[in-house]
Formats: sequence, C-alpha cells, structure tokens
Amino acid sequence: MIIELVTTGTELLLGQIVNLNAPFLAARLNELGFSVLYQTTVGDNRGRMKSVLETAFKRADIIITSGGLGPTQGDITKEVTAALFNKPMYLHEASAEQIKKFFAKRRLCMTDNNLRQAMMPEGAQIVENTCGTAPGVIIEDEMAGKIIINLPGPPRELTAMFEKSIVPYLSSRFGLQGAIVSRVLRTYGLGESALEERIKTYILGQSNPTLALLARNGEIHVRITAKAASVTEAVRLIDELESQIHPLLDEYIFGIDEETMERSVGNLLLNKNLTIALAESCTGGLVSSRITDVPGSSQYLMGSIVCYSNAVKVQQVGVPETTIETKGAVSPETAEYMAQGIREKLNTDIGVGITGIAGPDGATENKPVGLVYIAIDGAAGKVCYEHCFNGERADIKHRTALTALNHIRRYLLTI
Amino acid sequence: MIIELVTTGTELLLGQIVNLNAPFLAARLNELGFSVLYQTTVGDNRGRMKSVLETAFKRADIIITSGGLGPTQGDITKEVTAALFNKPMYLHEASAEQIKKFFAKRRLCMTDNNLRQAMMPEGAQIVENTCGTAPGVIIEDEMAGKIIINLPGPPRELTAMFEKSIVPYLSSRFGLQGAIVSRVLRTYGLGESALEERIKTYILGQSNPTLALLARNGEIHVRITAKAASVTEAVRLIDELESQIHPLLDEYIFGIDEETMERSVGNLLLNKNLTIALAESCTGGLVSSRITDVPGSSQYLMGSIVCYSNAVKVQQVGVPETTIETKGAVSPETAEYMAQGIREKLNTDIGVGITGIAGPDGATENKPVGLVYIAIDGAAGKVCYEHCFNGERADIKHRTALTALNHIRRYLLTI
Repeated sequence: MIIELVTTGTELLLGQIVNLNAPFLAARLNELGFSVLYQTTVGDNRGRMKSVLETAFKRADIIITSGGLGPTQGDITKEVTAALFNKPMYLHEASAEQIKKFFAKRRLCMTDNNLRQAMMPEGAQIVENTCGTAPGVIIEDEMAGKIIINLPGPPRELTAMFEKSIVPYLSSRFGLQGAIVSRVLRTYGLGESALEERIKTYILGQSNPTLALLARNGEIHVRITAKAASVTEAVRLIDELESQIHPLLDEYIFGIDEETMERSVGNLLLNKNLTIALAESCTGGLVSSRITDVPGSSQYLMGSIVCYSNAVKVQQVGVPETTIETKGAVSPETAEYMAQGIREKLNTDIGVGITGIAGPDGATENKPVGLVYIAIDGAAGKVCYEHCFNGERADIKHRTALTALNHIRRYLLTI
Repeated sequence: MIIELVTTGTELLLGQIVNLNAPFLAARLNELGFSVLYQTTVGDNRGRMKSVLETAFKRADIIITSGGLGPTQGDITKEVTAALFNKPMYLHEASAEQIKKFFAKRRLCMTDNNLRQAMMPEGAQIVENTCGTAPGVIIEDEMAGKIIINLPGPPRELTAMFEKSIVPYLSSRFGLQGAIVSRVLRTYGLGESALEERIKTYILGQSNPTLALLARNGEIHVRITAKAASVTEAVRLIDELESQIHPLLDEYIFGIDEETMERSVGNLLLNKNLTIALAESCTGGLVSSRITDVPGSSQYLMGSIVCYSNAVKVQQVGVPETTIETKGAVSPETAEYMAQGIREKLNTDIGVGITGIAGPDGATENKPVGLVYIAIDGAAGKVCYEHCFNGERADIKHRTALTALNHIRRYLLTI
C-alpha cells in the first residue's frame, strides 16, 4: 500500500512553522508496514489543493492530509476532498453537539463559523477528536480503490487521533500482518564513504533486512530494517546481519538505537565504577554539559573546571606557568597538565584536558583555527590526541566535544 | 515566479528527521518576493524522483532541490536532474580538486566514491560549497524557461550556499526590484499571547510593514518586514514601526536579528569592561558553553566551575557544608554562596551560581523536578531568583540556561 502525505497550510508554505506532522505520520506508517513514498505540502487554496490531491491519487493508494479542518474560511480541506469524490456536504449532528459541548465546558464564546467543523462529506466515516474541536474524516472510494483520510493540523490532535482511531482503522481494514523492526548502529570516526566501502557488499546484497547509512551531526548511523511475520523473527534477521557487519565496524560503533555518545561513556563509567572530571578550555563546558545530559550522571561526574583564561589554567588546574609560556596554552603539554591537574584536584579516577583554538581569532603561524588537543589521564596512563577541525566556531566546539567523548569511551574500554 | 521545493531523502520519507530545509528556504524565498506554492518530498529512487520533478516543472518556474549530492550510491539528485534535461555528466576538475584538498587538509582517507560529488551535468553552473564537499548546481533551460537548483541536504551547508550564492544569483537573474527588509526583535520572558496582546493593534493594523510572531526555543521573535522601492526606504518604514512597538516590549527585548542572548550578555560585559565566572550545578556547564559560543568571549569569561557533586561545591566553590546540610544543595542560600564563591575564587566582577533539579530523579516532597535557583553576585549586590520549569531533563537545562543568561543581562543593565 503506497501512501502520500499531504500537509496543508499557508504557514508551512511561508516557512513560519516546521512540519512535525509529516515525520510523525511517516515514521508510524512505516512501522505499520505501509510505504510512504511522497509527502506534499500545499497552501489553503482550492485550485492548488485539488490538483495536488489529484496528482496524489495517481501515484498512491491512500492519501492522508493534515490541516485545514478548522472553523475559518481558510479551512478547506474537507470541502476540496468532498468535491474530488463528488460528495455533497451535510451537517453532522453528533459532531455539532460535540462542538457545542466543547465550548460550553470551557465557557468560550462560539460563533457560527465553529459549526463549519461539523459539515461533513456524505458517506464519510467521522473520526472523533479527543483533543480539539475538529473531527477527522475517512472516505473510501470503492470504485477507484482509493482512500483519503483528513486529520487535523495541530500535532497534539493529529497524534492522538492517529493512535486512537486511524491505527485501529488501518489494522482492521488491511488486516495488518507481520512486523517491521529497525536497529541503528551508531558509529563515529569513519567517514560516510569509508564506512560504506567496508560494508558495501551487505548494502548492495541485502533486500531483507535492508541497510541504510545516515549522517547525523558528525556521527554515521547504520540502520538495519527487517520485515518478518513476527517481531521475534524480524529481530532474529537483524541479529544475524548485525553479527556479520559488527566486526567490520567494531571499534567505531559506540551505541545502539537511542544510545548517545555521552550515555555510552556514562554506562562505561558506571559499570567500571569510575569517576571523572574535566578541565575544558576551548569547549567552554560543552563536554561536561553533554555528560550531564544523561540522567544519573552525578554518580560519575564530580565536576569540571572551565579554564578559559590562562590564569585559571595555572591557578585552578595547576598547569605550570612555564609550560604555557614555552609551549603555549594550546599544546599537548598543556592538555596533559590539565588532565592530570583536574584529576588530582577533584580526586577522580579519570581526568580530561581539552584545549584548542575555536576561532575565528587566535590562530598563529603554526597553530591554525581548529587545532585541538585532548588529553586523558587515568589508570592506563596519560594519552594526548591532536586534531584539526574545519568549520565555524560552533562546529569546531561540537566536533571537539564529540571527539573528546569518543576518546574517553575508547580509553575506558582499555581499563 | 512560482517555486517548488523538492526535498529528497529516504530518511525524510521514513520520518527519521524533521525537514528543516523546506521552512528555511520557504521563509527566505518569500522574503525575496518569490511564491513558494508547493513543497514535495521524495526518496532516493530514480523513477519516483524523476516523476516528481516532471510534475514540479508543470506547475512551477523554478525548482529547488535539497539533498542527494553526497558521495554514496543513494545520492542521485544531480543525475536525475541531468537526465531530465538530457545533459550528460562530466568530471568537473575544479570541484574534484576542492574535494581532494578538503580530504588532505583533514588527513582523511578519500575513496573513489568521493569523486562522484565532482560529476556535473553539462552546461550547469557549479556553486561552491563553503561548508562541505558537495557543490551545488544551477541548470537553466532556456527553451522551457525553467530553472532547477540542486542544493546539498545538510542544513548548515544548504543555508550557507543559499545565502552566499543563490540569493545573489536570483537577484541578478530576476533583477529583483525594490527591497524586502526584515528585522527581528528577539524577546524573552513574555508568553506568545501576552506579547500578542501588547502589540495587537499593530499586528492587525499593519499591511506594510507586516508584523509576525515566531516562537523559537523559548524565545519569542517579533519579525517586522517592509517592502519598499529601496532598502533605505524599507529600513525607514521598519524604524518607524519599531519606535512605536519597542516601548511596549522594552524590557523583554534582548537582541536584534542575529543577536543571541549570549552575545547580548557578552556585549554588555565588553562595554562595561567587566569579567564573569560561573558556578554551575544542574546546567553542567551549558551556560558557560553558551557564553563561549561568542567569538572573543575570552575577554570577559575567566572560567567556571561545574560543581556537580556536593564535595566540589564545598571544596572548590566555598559553599559551607552546613548550608548544604541544613538548606540543601538546591536552595537560594547555596546558589548565593556559589555566586559569591566563584566570584572571589576567580577574582571576577560578576559571579553566577546555578543549582536545581534537572530530573527525572532527585525530587523531594518540597522540591519538585524543575526547581532552579539562579544567583548573581556583583557591584549591585547579591540577587537570587527561583524558577520551576516543566519538561524533560534537556528542556529544563535549556530553559535554565536561557533564563540565567537573561537574569545576567538584566543585572548588567543596572550597573
């Protein structure tokens, strides 16, 4: 079954709001086994909406619209849908009652416009809206074998109506069988094409499960998706493929599904019963902030010092003044002293020092913008890594934070 | 000129990511005077992409695509576009050189796949990508009077390319006459409807300039847009309207256009020649990180201490142990000691202390998740604010950081 999503609303066309309904519906429908192959957005204009729906009918079996069920003159989705099927509109009494009750309960003033929401295409199934006043509509055209579903625009109303009424409708109508299950292997440190190269044969050779690569904020995600008669069987297919590709990417995989880099680091610290502290210069506290994005991180992060000025590096973290003078604040020596200093000062198992040039100023002849040193001190000794990142200040901070977390993760794996 | 946006990518169809390119392009193109009447999303499938582009050509003068310019086998947008215009593909040497340089500079391994990004449709204008490896493409079909523009998918690359190359291209190509100028007044602290109430007469009464309210990550932006024969005249219209609404929102406006809260704070510190240091608990370094997002922030941020554990609060920031025992780590007293302690320790003009319960754990009978204290110590004395924020851990951290920066801003205005 091919589905096209048609999201309507001039505010979408003007770019005033981000479309959250399309990704919600797409994700849920895919999980249910439908193929959402097209998403179209059109404004509150009768002619253009009609033509978009006509195009959609040529290429899809089911159209799901969102928006345009409200009380204003600009809300035309039901009327355009009815016209497409040559159905007249009538006042649906039960819906009118619901709307009157809704207003009475909230002591709100109701206008005649509000009753427009109870006007329905003849022969349509009316879908209750448990979060608002606009009912949804399902029309089946048996001759053409097509279905159109009109959902309200506000994401909260759409989500509730979809889960409560549309999922049961689709399940019973299409006797949904089987299961689609996905698993995401999150990797860091290999470029997209280098990663593709490693698992190319599996990407090209597979039809079930399928493999897809997704670049996400510097991470590369490998998504394995399997279709099968049951969840158990789909999971078995995924396990089988994962066991083949995992060894090819092993050191780069830091998490599965929703496991972020900071959660992976946190789990390692918890499991090994270790504490950590950071001395951050160019990242300005970003790495500590990311570590504390994980609930329960107070169990392993004791604290950090953002040593932005050289004085703070010297006085609070114990970097020798002569090191800064002779080697520079951005040097492997300073990074190592920072890691060691913060570890000693906050009395933790692991100490991390990060110093670099986030730019746009601060570069020297030998030290370009983006040059970063990340040092770690702990039971496995002191290590220091040099990187040079491209991009704007924010990108450099982001890449440095992600890379630092990854170095911490790999350091923890060795102890 | 009618424009259709065609965003491509299977991850959009699967609902795995939210489409941020469409609203960005739509908003900017509308500002430039183009009508974006259709937005379509299609996956990385040759047949379907071709048919979507054909449909788009029937109803639009200009098609702008995003995505599918990468190095993998799934990146097919340029090829499909070239096929549509019957143009063969060739290796564009200058782009190939750029890509080689990009990899060399980052010391990354390059594969043959990467050179796919330098394959271009014959006769196309090549558009430089200043943030990534995938160049953009402009093809004009003079016979049909149609234009297609291929932009990269990553929002950062797309945004930069659009502003640096596509806006100048469209302006010169269509001799954009007159000027459309926007100014954004960024506010914080007033809800959307309370703000609307204050400037309602201006929202309803204006046709040029127009006023729009946009909620953005807890901030409310008031966008004033004027059309006029020249930029000077448009700016004059905006100045006139701004002078009327500014007094109604005065204390809530923290920045104009791209001036973020942290930049506004930074400018105040610079202008007043003051230094700052923070003691952060529940925000874990997020406020310091945001302050250091601003280039040149090393002039006023000396450093910070993320005092996540009570031991660090006591030993490094000087919070009396008895205060933590009797009042609690999340209390106005602790916040004030943190502000004073960090100010004294790092010898700065301003000290800030932030402590709270980010959740989901840590709540007690009297102290719910979301309870936060923000204290500031400086020349105007000690102040402390209590807030209780809703939402998930990440929301609470974000709201706390934004609110803390706003308190710092308003404190700085008094000294």
